[in-house]
Amino acid sequence: MWRIVPREEKFFELFEEGAQNAHTGARMLHRLINDFADVEERAREIEGIEHEGDRITHEIMGRLNKTFLTPIDREDIHAIAKELDNIIDLIEATADRLHLYKITVITEDARSLADLVLKSTEEVCKAVEGLRELKKGKSVKHCVEINRLENDADRIYRLAIARLFENGTNAIEAFKWKEIYDHLETATDACEDVANLIEGVAMKYA
Amino acid sequence: MWRIVPREEKFFELFEEGAQNAHTGARMLHRLINDFADVEERAREIEGIEHEGDRITHEIMGRLNKTFLTPIDREDIHAIAKELDNIIDLIEATADRLHLYKITVITEDARSLADLVLKSTEEVCKAVEGLRELKKGKSVKHCVEINRLENDADRIYRLAIARLFENGTNAIEAFKWKEIYDHLETATDACEDVANLIEGVAMKYA
Amino acid sequence: MWRIVPREEKFFELFEEGAQNAHTGARMLHRLINDFADVEERAREIEGIEHEGDRITHEIMGRLNKTFLTPIDREDIHAIAKELDNIIDLIEATADRLHLYKITVITEDARSLADLVLKSTEEVCKAVEGLRELKKGKSVKHCVEINRLENDADRIYRLAIARLFENGTNAIEAFKWKEIYDHLETATDACEDVANLIEGVAMKYA
Repeated sequence: MWRIVPREEKFFELFEEGAQNAHTGARMLHRLINDFADVEERAREIEGIEHEGDRITHEIMGRLNKTFLTPIDREDIHAIAKELDNIIDLIEATADRLHLYKITVITEDARSLADLVLKSTEEVCKAVEGLRELKKGKSVKHCVEINRLENDADRIYRLAIARLFENGTNAIEAFKWKEIYDHLETATDACEDVANLIEGVAMKYA
Repeated sequence: MWRIVPREEKFFELFEEGAQNAHTGARMLHRLINDFADVEERAREIEGIEHEGDRITHEIMGRLNKTFLTPIDREDIHAIAKELDNIIDLIEATADRLHLYKITVITEDARSLADLVLKSTEEVCKAVEGLRELKKGKSVKHCVEINRLENDADRIYRLAIARLFENGTNAIEAFKWKEIYDHLETATDACEDVANLIEGVAMKYA
Repeated sequence: MWRIVPREEKFFELFEEGAQNAHTGARMLHRLINDFADVEERAREIEGIEHEGDRITHEIMGRLNKTFLTPIDREDIHAIAKELDNIIDLIEATADRLHLYKITVITEDARSLADLVLKSTEEVCKAVEGLRELKKGKSVKHCVEINRLENDADRIYRLAIARLFENGTNAIEAFKWKEIYDHLETATDACEDVANLIEGVAMKYA
């Protein structure tokens, strides 16, 4: 399975791989949270996806070092690769905490946030695909949608934290869930960062 | 109200805007902490200031991408813009936590730290103004003062944390205040980072 | 004690100084944790080492600004200097928390982690020395060992956290130790980051 790829297209291919990989992780986390069993084993599978993300990022950075002319600015390639990696890192960290903290019952707020992470990574895949044809402005609507999803996540996160700290919550439990909600909400922030970077690139080439 | 501005001066103008904006946020937080009422509404106003900070940062970065010759090194412009934005982000995060965590009584330590944040941002405004005339060394004394204020904040922060973890504090309360103190102290750190960046620029052009 | 040093060697000298300095801090923390007395005084001594780290980083950055031709890529020099500084910052933060949180009895897990930080910084010193003769591949085995030590630290960290959150732990104590373990584990992460940067540089010059 070999074909000649112009040098520049390779970066777009790797971005798409990175975005798809983050989306795969998001889907696995979403499934775990909605069917909460075999946590250790399934958290370990998500860790495998996270390692795959490291490999993709590593390949982008290595290629960046050896490429003289890049299709978009070097610093944008660097920043997008790093943020895509950040998304899957946060998804993995969430799964990891669910296991490490011996969580037994999933909260409704965690379910809502995992849902938004899933939807956000789906839009990230589409926004990243649009990079190949910047002038057609295909990324724009997906970037707008990612921003909307992040606002939703922020609203739910804030209500979740408020609930967590109501009188009567056990402090250790509050502490654990605060970290889990933080990771989920920050994953949607990382999606938004990718969207903002893509919008920035689109503006330059407009 | 229009005048021709040499391209390079525009960066200084935007830095001054960003510093002034952070100082406005600090003043609003200081007032909120010293007259603790209407927390939700006033936290939302500070959020508006934080959005204004995003706009300024965005304008600096956009201009940087389109400017070939910059008055100081590109990476310094990038770093100063990012740290100025960081200051207002931390101020907003503090106001947000006061609301989100349903704080009812402000501690003396929070008041002292908010006071230092206010003084630090005032000095940041003056240090940033000095960038226009680097050779005259106008920024130096303000950078020194910012470092002094950060040392004060660090000392107060440490005493506050020690007090917080004395026997008898409710864990949830300790957890909330730890985060609020962290944000306030980190805001003075961000002011110090701006001061260090300005000193670095001044050294290069000495 | 003066000798003529070719400009480029100076960066390697400063990296070695930075690595040795971090290792000195790790040794002092290791001793403190294994002979837990005079905590305030000895934490302050480690703070002195951390200030020395700031001076070294500052000298590297200043030199970078004034050097036109560098022996390895500028961004690699910048990143390595920053990560070396990060190691000693985290070591200092650990010592600081031991004092600030009025810890009286050291846990077995803290001892194990401090041991791994000590071993990691020793390997960082050797990996950094290898930078002078990249083609001989002297850094490689030390980078591999640093990765192995980081995996160990991660495993111990995770067991420590699980233990911390078992039923019955006092919440305030759990918060304090969580932060201390985080700092220790992140110190081995920072060592791994240095190793990864050195491997990246080695790949470019292979």
